[in-house]
Amino acid sequence: MHEIQGQLKTESVILPSDFIEEIHNQSFYGRIVKQGIKLTLSEAAYLLHKQKIEIVSGTKKLDFVDFFKLASSNDENFEVKYIVYEDLRERGYYVQPSVMDFRVYPRGGHPGKTPSKYLLHILSERKITPVCELIECVETANNLKKRVVLAIVDEESDITFYELKKSVLGEVTTTSLPQLEEEATFLGDRTIIWNSKTSKQLHQQGFYGKFLDKTHLQLSLVETAYLLKEHVIRLQRANNEPITYSEFITLAGTIEPDFQLKYRTYEDLRQRNLVPKTGFKFGAHFRVYVKYNREDKTTHAEYLVHSIPKSHQFSLSDFSRASRLAHSVRKHIIYAVISGDSITYLEIMRIKL
Amino acid sequence: MHEIQGQLKTESVILPSDFIEEIHNQSFYGRIVKQGIKLTLSEAAYLLHKQKIEIVSGTKKLDFVDFFKLASSNDENFEVKYIVYEDLRERGYYVQPSVMDFRVYPRGGHPGKTPSKYLLHILSERKITPVCELIECVETANNLKKRVVLAIVDEESDITFYELKKSVLGEVTTTSLPQLEEEATFLGDRTIIWNSKTSKQLHQQGFYGKFLDKTHLQLSLVETAYLLKEHVIRLQRANNEPITYSEFITLAGTIEPDFQLKYRTYEDLRQRNLVPKTGFKFGAHFRVYVKYNREDKTTHAEYLVHSIPKSHQFSLSDFSRASRLAHSVRKHIIYAVISGDSITYLEIMRIKL
Repeated sequence: MHEIQGQLKTESVILPSDFIEEIHNQSFYGRIVKQGIKLTLSEAAYLLHKQKIEIVSGTKKLDFVDFFKLASSNDENFEVKYIVYEDLRERGYYVQPSVMDFRVYPRGGHPGKTPSKYLLHILSERKITPVCELIECVETANNLKKRVVLAIVDEESDITFYELKKSVLGEVTTTSLPQLEEEATFLGDRTIIWNSKTSKQLHQQGFYGKFLDKTHLQLSLVETAYLLKEHVIRLQRANNEPITYSEFITLAGTIEPDFQLKYRTYEDLRQRNLVPKTGFKFGAHFRVYVKYNREDKTTHAEYLVHSIPKSHQFSLSDFSRASRLAHSVRKHIIYAVISGDSITYLEIMRIKL
Repeated sequence: MHEIQGQLKTESVILPSDFIEEIHNQSFYGRIVKQGIKLTLSEAAYLLHKQKIEIVSGTKKLDFVDFFKLASSNDENFEVKYIVYEDLRERGYYVQPSVMDFRVYPRGGHPGKTPSKYLLHILSERKITPVCELIECVETANNLKKRVVLAIVDEESDITFYELKKSVLGEVTTTSLPQLEEEATFLGDRTIIWNSKTSKQLHQQGFYGKFLDKTHLQLSLVETAYLLKEHVIRLQRANNEPITYSEFITLAGTIEPDFQLKYRTYEDLRQRNLVPKTGFKFGAHFRVYVKYNREDKTTHAEYLVHSIPKSHQFSLSDFSRASRLAHSVRKHIIYAVISGDSITYLEIMRIKL
């Protein structure tokens, strides 16, 4: 068993070509190169731990501890990669290096038989991760027609897998709202429509606002801005001074620092014929109804949508919180990433692999 | 019905003393003052909406819309207070003003019959709230032997109630760990103990670390710091250079910005004979076992503990996320508030009221 000996290079281990059949063709480790079989450090550590190979550095034979220390010095992400590699191989997946960290073959598949299914991006729980990096991963994977999965390794080396994808949230349509110019009063941090007929109409047809009592409808800041822009309402202060749309946008920004970010997404969702309502109880900006029917009490908001700027950096524990929560209330969690005039909807979903 | 007429003052409405029996003694609105019955703006708005009273300002009679606008100008929190007041009264609770916003009588109780049960602190979802303000609320309520409840009013005027309390997490005891000075290597962002006997002992007796494979134990940063301080391990780099406790603390701080904050709580919890393990999967610093038994696979971590500095300011949607998550995994969410040498454990729990 022990006669297969590999030579440690900086970021790989080279095995002699005599073992191509056994190691590469049958068991799908390594890539064939001029010098023999080239293993990644993770592959080499796994084979060493399994006592399938020996590893030398120059003429010195390395035990697992020596090799682990050296590999960690040579590749600062070695440990987390090894943890994920070992986990996947032990559970019967075939894994190869890729443009991201690994590509993973579907269950029952292997190199040469099937295309790989997932591209894996491996992160330590502590890695602060820019949303741009994630969008790039999704775009790379889309180009290669693969699914992209984050593998996050926590302090205890437990792994959580998240699939990332871009969401398509319906087409932008031209909506036509009645230009009622209905009187509405802005009070502190919400707006009240006093007319009971308009109140009922807006609530029933578009699920705008919430009734303060049976006759008066309260609107949130984003609802106020949208209906004001669409001339459905005209707005005044408690002392009857009028407020224009652009004054209101400025005012709302002073009340809620995130307002502009939220409003961009609110308007976009409304234009896609979706119904966004506050997601406060779920810790997100919006819960979003795809098909909304006021009469049907079982109507269920399918999405939780949270607006973030393109410069946003995730702490990876945000994903734990958000995806557990989304799962417990059976909703999809989607980040609306605002970049100039465009919004990318990025869905993050915990998966079992 | 309509002969009860109140006079609007800045932050109250005064009713004539003729109606003390009907309004105050039987229905528990207002407080008796020299001029008659003094109603809060919320009480007055509620009685006006119910058409039990009329309200005049000087000689001008105010309808509900007029009164609502005036009250909003006079008290910037009027709307959210009214929303909560109306909700509680409609659901049969008696409510009086208090040192915080309201005191609430238990179901079936009322002023004069029973003491009030809850002190209510009312916040709009958008209010950024310093943790100190919450601790103050708890201390005030404790002095008065009341329970303290936050009522958070969201954009749609839905109310979520959270009970706040200080948690007692067991006594500080003197623990004695074996001073093994066992060799451990720090690799990138975790530590490995190579000796298999020590690995087993630490894992079984104190639930330290996680096995990398069957023989090597990995420790997290906080575990490394604690065991290093207690001389259970001695630490070295991959190149065998030793690392002292104080060097390690500095180093860990560069790897994880929250490290010192987390470690303070970790050490305190260990000294209270509790077993903290990473809470990453739950979006908190630690999950904490009260009774930990390695043999019992059903062992359940009772608490999620998250360290924050005394200067921390909550966004109130943090509570939605944290408490929904804690509920879905049947754990209590506790904030460890670090202030100089002391830690206050603040528990936040969603309740139905």
